[in-house]
Amino acid sequence: MVPHLITALTGPINELEQRILESMPAIERWFRLEWMEHTPPFYSSVDLRNAGFKLAPVDTNLFPGGFNNLTEEMLPLAVQASMAAIEKICPEAKNLLLIPERHTRNSFYLTNVQRLVQIFQAAGLNVRLGTLDETIKEPTTLELPDGSTLTVEPLVRTKRRLGLKDFDPCTILLNNDLSAGLPEVLEGLHEQYLLPPLHAGWAVRRKSNHFQAYEEVAKKFAKLLGMDPWLINPMFAKCGQVNFQEGAGLECLQSNVDALLAKIRRKYKEYGIQEKPFVIVKADAGTYGMGIMTVRDAKDLTALNRKTRNKMSVIKDGQEVSEVIIQEGVPTYERINDAVAEPVVYMIDRYVVGGFYRVHAERGIDENLNSPGASFVPLAFAESAQLPKPHAKPGASPPNRFYMYGVIGRLAMLAASYELEATDPNAETYD
Amino acid sequence: MVPHLITALTGPINELEQRILESMPAIERWFRLEWMEHTPPFYSSVDLRNAGFKLAPVDTNLFPGGFNNLTEEMLPLAVQASMAAIEKICPEAKNLLLIPERHTRNSFYLTNVQRLVQIFQAAGLNVRLGTLDETIKEPTTLELPDGSTLTVEPLVRTKRRLGLKDFDPCTILLNNDLSAGLPEVLEGLHEQYLLPPLHAGWAVRRKSNHFQAYEEVAKKFAKLLGMDPWLINPMFAKCGQVNFQEGAGLECLQSNVDALLAKIRRKYKEYGIQEKPFVIVKADAGTYGMGIMTVRDAKDLTALNRKTRNKMSVIKDGQEVSEVIIQEGVPTYERINDAVAEPVVYMIDRYVVGGFYRVHAERGIDENLNSPGASFVPLAFAESAQLPKPHAKPGASPPNRFYMYGVIGRLAMLAASYELEATDPNAETYD
Repeated sequence: MVPHLITALTGPINELEQRILESMPAIERWFRLEWMEHTPPFYSSVDLRNAGFKLAPVDTNLFPGGFNNLTEEMLPLAVQASMAAIEKICPEAKNLLLIPERHTRNSFYLTNVQRLVQIFQAAGLNVRLGTLDETIKEPTTLELPDGSTLTVEPLVRTKRRLGLKDFDPCTILLNNDLSAGLPEVLEGLHEQYLLPPLHAGWAVRRKSNHFQAYEEVAKKFAKLLGMDPWLINPMFAKCGQVNFQEGAGLECLQSNVDALLAKIRRKYKEYGIQEKPFVIVKADAGTYGMGIMTVRDAKDLTALNRKTRNKMSVIKDGQEVSEVIIQEGVPTYERINDAVAEPVVYMIDRYVVGGFYRVHAERGIDENLNSPGASFVPLAFAESAQLPKPHAKPGASPPNRFYMYGVIGRLAMLAASYELEATDPNAETYD
Repeated sequence: MVPHLITALTGPINELEQRILESMPAIERWFRLEWMEHTPPFYSSVDLRNAGFKLAPVDTNLFPGGFNNLTEEMLPLAVQASMAAIEKICPEAKNLLLIPERHTRNSFYLTNVQRLVQIFQAAGLNVRLGTLDETIKEPTTLELPDGSTLTVEPLVRTKRRLGLKDFDPCTILLNNDLSAGLPEVLEGLHEQYLLPPLHAGWAVRRKSNHFQAYEEVAKKFAKLLGMDPWLINPMFAKCGQVNFQEGAGLECLQSNVDALLAKIRRKYKEYGIQEKPFVIVKADAGTYGMGIMTVRDAKDLTALNRKTRNKMSVIKDGQEVSEVIIQEGVPTYERINDAVAEPVVYMIDRYVVGGFYRVHAERGIDENLNSPGASFVPLAFAESAQLPKPHAKPGASPPNRFYMYGVIGRLAMLAASYELEATDPNAETYD
């Protein structure tokens, strides 16, 4: 099923689409060369916003949930990509330990975990689930909506290795983003592969590092295609010491919001875009769509009401916000029926394995859609004409649009590998 | 669309299916370890016969045509597998030279070539077509049924490299099986990758070498699963000097047919199979479904009529038959509507990328279906439930059956790598 997309898209994106399609062999080769130098994250998902005049990633998740939202038709791609990933990491592996989030009552999330288990089993691994929840002392059975079950087990840590009772894995795969901090049980595991690495967790990771790396990637890619990197790059700034509850650090925020709005206004003028600029203020270490607000004027920050201050102060797992990223707002002009939509691209290793539209009927085109009430419509990558068609009229062909989304998604994934290299605490430096 | 399969399948295959599904992680790991030691062919297709009591490959093609018969839904798998293949062979590659068969008027074949071009372009290569037809002196445009065109160009050979005018490829991919002999223009290309290697062409290759390697693979795999290798292995014998026109060498053929029929009879008795055994006699170097006959009794060989003698004497590109393989006949009990069907599995690198049923309304269950009048129904690998379901009732689930077909197809592909290693004229030997 191709979702009924209403994309009132204007000039630049159609030009971008055409340029990307014409350059397909060059783009794929460029990625291939980049992957000779850099290691892709094990898996990732990227939220995109398509404004018609601009297409940009706005969030890159290195612990993707939501595999349950991909169409089943796409699963063989995920299996194949996992096979390629495992072969590189641990070709002799028999066992994979998967560590999911703790919220074991969310049946959507459990279905995501079930899907991951299926994928890795089909790729040739015995998969078992270990939990960071120390209150779970015995193997515990969780029921899924389809009547099947998953069993989570307490972790068994020895001096050098992590496993479960009678289960010694080669690779430990985190589907838990470590927002709550770095668990001791995961430290010092030098004999096993821990993926993603600890510094990819939100206890350490910062969105601003990611978007700095993305800017570098976007510039390289834009040079390859001979275009303005702004067309795919959201500008950003950051503030280090903000306390929304106490109103501390708001001057930094206001001046940066003001400066960024001015920069956006100049870009809009350059391209003749008749839109009101906005920025998104969000926790630099935040996730789950928490701690995010849309700001259209720096003055709005002086009069934040209690509700907004509360919302901005605490994010997932009760962590307090103090570092903040201010990101150029990219409106989304994609709709499914009447609801505002944004594409999300899923990747395993270097490969696009699927995607979906996040759809929210009660949100505006300049708001965060990752919030309660969102629903998901699988992207039709797998439809009858899913290979890009270089000669189709730009904008006319969903597969062409999805190819472009896959390219931008992979640029963000490449940025994540740059980012993880730059922030690796164990990296060797050659000064 | 799941093809309407009528599979009157009896016990053993359902047991095999169940054992294969239960062993999925072990099987995938086993393949992974095999691929650490052996290099898969760049691409391949395998014809299977499912007799209900036995499932076996009967032909392995290392120059597969027929990519046009795969569903478009499966193409992303082919693209992803090609990316993985290219990355290993020639990661910096820009250019791929594809050398198709000469029969440029067969629009089905041309559509296969077009599909291959699409796949490799999407994998990041500039693809151009070179021809072994020396009468083509200029770039020549060929029209396809959908109104698009392909251009084939004369080869340009220098002392060390092969290319086209202004086109220097890293890899040369043959989609021409070299039945007509080894062209001089392809010899001594030590600077470029020539895939498949020359000794994979039918000028050198022998089916009997392949099935000898397959026997070894089948034994290893059967040991892994704790089963009788005969359930997946077609027995065979060969005769070196047969001349059907002159009736020479027929004694060898008769005694081998007789002995093989006796061996099959014993196996049928062991399994309580109420079938009349038969063997397939075919050219050891033949392809295109040419030079094949079904023999139910060795006596039938004494009275071959002129038509049969002619059919058996000359195969593709006018080559004379003298070496002959006698293969255990495996009836096919799959039907699509009223027509006899056999599955064909397509692979790129180590990955299953699709398949189809070859269907022939005018042939029997003990006859070769690869002949004029055959049609093709894509295998529904990509259907809504295409991941194997370990707990489904054996025989009840098309995806489970297709997973099993993919496993047997990959066993034959693995046999092809053993075979190519064993027959490599440049192999280093350590005696």
